[in-house]
Amino acid sequence: MLRVPYGELEQTVAGALRRLGFAEERAQLCARLFAETTRDGVYTHGMNRFPRFVRMIRAGRIDIHASPVLTASHGALERWDGRRGVGNLNAHHSMGRAIELAGLHGVGAVALADTNHWMRAGTYGWQAAEAGFIGVCWTNTLPNMPPWGSSQIRLGNNPIVFAVPRPPAHIVFDMAMSQFSYGALAAYRERGEQLPVDGGFDTAGRLTRDPAAIEESQRVLPVGYWKGAGLAMMLDMIAAILSGGLATHQIPVEPEREVGISQIFLAFDPAALGPADAAAKMAGSIVASVDSHYPGQRAFELRAENLALGVPVDEAVWREVREIAGGA
Amino acid sequence: MLRVPYGELEQTVAGALRRLGFAEERAQLCARLFAETTRDGVYTHGMNRFPRFVRMIRAGRIDIHASPVLTASHGALERWDGRRGVGNLNAHHSMGRAIELAGLHGVGAVALADTNHWMRAGTYGWQAAEAGFIGVCWTNTLPNMPPWGSSQIRLGNNPIVFAVPRPPAHIVFDMAMSQFSYGALAAYRERGEQLPVDGGFDTAGRLTRDPAAIEESQRVLPVGYWKGAGLAMMLDMIAAILSGGLATHQIPVEPEREVGISQIFLAFDPAALGPADAAAKMAGSIVASVDSHYPGQRAFELRAENLALGVPVDEAVWREVREIAGGA
Repeated sequence: MLRVPYGELEQTVAGALRRLGFAEERAQLCARLFAETTRDGVYTHGMNRFPRFVRMIRAGRIDIHASPVLTASHGALERWDGRRGVGNLNAHHSMGRAIELAGLHGVGAVALADTNHWMRAGTYGWQAAEAGFIGVCWTNTLPNMPPWGSSQIRLGNNPIVFAVPRPPAHIVFDMAMSQFSYGALAAYRERGEQLPVDGGFDTAGRLTRDPAAIEESQRVLPVGYWKGAGLAMMLDMIAAILSGGLATHQIPVEPEREVGISQIFLAFDPAALGPADAAAKMAGSIVASVDSHYPGQRAFELRAENLALGVPVDEAVWREVREIAGGA
Repeated sequence: MLRVPYGELEQTVAGALRRLGFAEERAQLCARLFAETTRDGVYTHGMNRFPRFVRMIRAGRIDIHASPVLTASHGALERWDGRRGVGNLNAHHSMGRAIELAGLHGVGAVALADTNHWMRAGTYGWQAAEAGFIGVCWTNTLPNMPPWGSSQIRLGNNPIVFAVPRPPAHIVFDMAMSQFSYGALAAYRERGEQLPVDGGFDTAGRLTRDPAAIEESQRVLPVGYWKGAGLAMMLDMIAAILSGGLATHQIPVEPEREVGISQIFLAFDPAALGPADAAAKMAGSIVASVDSHYPGQRAFELRAENLALGVPVDEAVWREVREIAGGA
């Protein structure tokens, strides 16, 4: 693992994206979103995803020139078509538009069809909170989780994000409907560790803490058993209905062919109803009362550490990025 | 357990509420919401709650004459003060207003402060779906759940509801952030059964399936361990911030003193963006693809059964209701 200064990381990724054909402004933003995710310690969804992202661009599954277009609207609710563009750019645009709508109407809702993987879900929560808005967003995914009581992989793990502004240490909660992501399972397996709690079923249908057994069966456990399975179904349903896009069962199962997904972005303007600092005060009071780690705390702390020491990047990934950028 | 014809149940409850001082229209609506909850088989939150509801009215903790008042608004986002009125009437009013706002703006959001227990959470999801709207709502509660890794009871179990219209069998999902409600724990204990999965910690801090041990420790397990604890904190935070009302740590811990809670009601108009039947079609397609029970199915089926056979009501509860109504 290397430690790369943040600025060098972001600029090298931007250079690679330009070489891949991205327009200047889009290269800068996309690079920032990848680099910030790694800077914040969400290693599974930052630079470690970059090689797959490049393969999907080269395979023609992500259109690097496509921007979302508005396809229907009614006041504070809009439907956009992501045109199979770059997932993090599309999602950033959509939360940005939800924030604009919330500025006008108090609340804003954007439903985005036909988009691609947004990488770190929390990115768009941080985006809302940085702008002073409460943000809620979720995505559907390819089928990667069984309904409760079934061995068939029919549900997505459909991450959802809730964010509350409290500058500079915003409260950002990001939760997939599986107890552990496949990235987390792989990380436990590579460290030779068992999961701290049951994470899925083995191929014989027994609950297990063995990450490799779950990777083999693909029967990850929904959060809260039947509850997470039900919630995943609802999030898929609302995303597909409001966006007019695809539901999980219509999305290809292979990760590198997971395209055309559906997402929801909601923003609320707390300053529209009361004093501008009321949200931060209440958030602080709740965090103090609960007296435990708060969502987003780890990202905030790792951000400071990684800005000071350099951002940890896998050596092979870094070599690939630099090669694409023409700097190797 | 008696089986009472639905019409008789609703009218007897309405009579009892009139005797308690409710105005005619409010008695009718409040009675319907209690009776429908029991009709739909959600026995823990229907008539079985009625005696406690009456005690809280008699103790002056619920103001049966108070209606919510608008205290701040900005377009599609409104803040209302529930004035410690009747919880289910306040919540029904708020989802009704969110639906009106969604009719005007595509999406509507109502934040309700200073209200009381809304009884069945799903009621307001069914309300949105019956009106043809997607509904999302949640409430905070008194502290009844520990943060992950703590033995202190600092979080509410803050139920959330997602509803999608698909007439007549709407999809309505209703989930508290604890793996089991205290009502469910009591039901398992009374049947002499263990829980099907771990439901909390015993007083020694060990995960357990023994409902009595969890009732004793009060350390119920959050859905998905750390995940449900984080989600509960976010729902509390957003409800308290947008409503300007109380957060969980500011709400009295004793159930019969749980007053002044905060709630959020969101409605989305799917017909504002596309064909009116698109929501129902997509919901049906997802339900078919998942090939398991869908959220709301059990309520829909029990409703038909209880309308045909009479609604099951506990004998002692029924005697009390009839006594209050003056019919005993």
